[in-house]
Amino acid sequence: MMPGRLPREGATFVVLVLAALVGVGLAPGIRAQEVASDDADWRLLGPERTLYMWLPGGRVVIELAPEFAPEHVENIRTLVRERYFDGLAVIRVQDNYVTQWGDPDGERPFGSARAELEAELDRPIGELPFTPLPDGDLYAPEVGYSRGFPVARNPDTGRAWLVHCYGMVGVARDVEIGSGDGSQLYVVIGHSPRHLDLNTTMVGRVVRGMEHLSSLPRGSGRLGFYTADQSKPLIDRVRLGTELPAGERTELEVMRTDSEAFRNWIEARRTRTEEWFVAPGGRVSVCNVPVPSRDPAG
Amino acid sequence: MMPGRLPREGATFVVLVLAALVGVGLAPGIRAQEVASDDADWRLLGPERTLYMWLPGGRVVIELAPEFAPEHVENIRTLVRERYFDGLAVIRVQDNYVTQWGDPDGERPFGSARAELEAELDRPIGELPFTPLPDGDLYAPEVGYSRGFPVARNPDTGRAWLVHCYGMVGVARDVEIGSGDGSQLYVVIGHSPRHLDLNTTMVGRVVRGMEHLSSLPRGSGRLGFYTADQSKPLIDRVRLGTELPAGERTELEVMRTDSEAFRNWIEARRTRTEEWFVAPGGRVSVCNVPVPSRDPAG
Repeated sequence: MMPGRLPREGATFVVLVLAALVGVGLAPGIRAQEVASDDADWRLLGPERTLYMWLPGGRVVIELAPEFAPEHVENIRTLVRERYFDGLAVIRVQDNYVTQWGDPDGERPFGSARAELEAELDRPIGELPFTPLPDGDLYAPEVGYSRGFPVARNPDTGRAWLVHCYGMVGVARDVEIGSGDGSQLYVVIGHSPRHLDLNTTMVGRVVRGMEHLSSLPRGSGRLGFYTADQSKPLIDRVRLGTELPAGERTELEVMRTDSEAFRNWIEARRTRTEEWFVAPGGRVSVCNVPVPSRDPAG
Repeated sequence: MMPGRLPREGATFVVLVLAALVGVGLAPGIRAQEVASDDADWRLLGPERTLYMWLPGGRVVIELAPEFAPEHVENIRTLVRERYFDGLAVIRVQDNYVTQWGDPDGERPFGSARAELEAELDRPIGELPFTPLPDGDLYAPEVGYSRGFPVARNPDTGRAWLVHCYGMVGVARDVEIGSGDGSQLYVVIGHSPRHLDLNTTMVGRVVRGMEHLSSLPRGSGRLGFYTADQSKPLIDRVRLGTELPAGERTELEVMRTDSEAFRNWIEARRTRTEEWFVAPGGRVSVCNVPVPSRDPAG
């Protein structure tokens, strides 16, 4: 029963932030699951792929996924640059489902962003690296990780797509498949709603500050929308990493999902070696291997 | 695009509370998934199986599972009757994992409750009804529903056990497998941590008021424990249904998981017929079919 140690030790990084997920101890005392890595196993979360959103509870950091939804990511960048989201609000928090933000009425002018985009539901497999999971999936022929994101693939169709794990960010839309434009986004805050896969355009993942989206009061209206008598959490501002002076960014690093360290991390999540487990498992699903990230500044 | 209708219509119940889970609409407008049922498809949540817990945000209603953990459920009933939990607090909220409550130091006297119990990890299959899911599972040979709870089974060992879906309640323990006694409980508030299956004693499910547990501020300590400078949400009191006058209970009904209506509900979750879906699925996992409940009083 040794308490966890600090997350950095010379050139070896101890994945303690995620190790914290393992135990349901009566008291701290679960042995940490440690995966060694070196600096080459990590990549900087480049400022051009990073979105910062200031909410009442704190700052949310989102990694964008231009590889999977280039047109939508570019549209979101344009909206952010033109301050579309500043002063808007979180409009919906549905328990065990999604938190959604943006313009509830679609009335704010779009500026030079596009109001019409085709949905980007999947991509050709050929373009993308892939670290497979060995245990299969209920919803797709293959699952694994690509460029830091959980993905599914179908070798028969030659297509790959992002999956709805906790913390994944998608483009809200109306009934019309092409009605999503990036002006309203949602994040998964409950058990993975995998039935949404291939139904919406996914654009990224929350890397830091997820609690500022998941612990918000639930909306009491239909589908978890906030009602008129509930105060909506305001979005102070949203900025691209490239818009911020270096001192205001958090230079996060994300574990490379094509690294040996990440394959070891998958194995550590599949079979639990901590003393606490009496049934160590031996299988893992795609939404149970969160991609590690770290803040080298501490 | 018709907005949802009210949840009761003569003898036919429209499962609208759960239908609300389906869409990620820009605006309300998703066609509700409707499953017809009649009164025989529902059972009263008997007061002897019901736990009420008053938190700052509101009241939580938990259905106990004596079929799966008779000794622990009986111990929890004793603790509740002797007011063990009154004035204690939520002590841990770890994002995408669990909310945990009880005595952080294990110092409160147990009264006539037992301090030592053997873990109740699984049960003989023979005792329990079972409505199977057809699409398989990554973690167990068979999954389905029994007496209102998500369960897994292994025909080879002849054992069945409750699974860690969102809202399921378990007994926290230390490294020692027999160290859980019911004085600290946890509830799943994120993606299902199925690796905990068969590692802890599960005792029930939150049927109402889940948002009062899932939207709490996250603990900033290790494993999501609240630190000294965070105020812990206090448990005003916990009562068994049988301890409350009828007027103070909520006479909830839970859909019988061995009913035709529930099998239809599974199918409705497997293949989405709502206009919103362009990829209607055709498969479903055990944690994606929440068991419907209703309040006949409205």
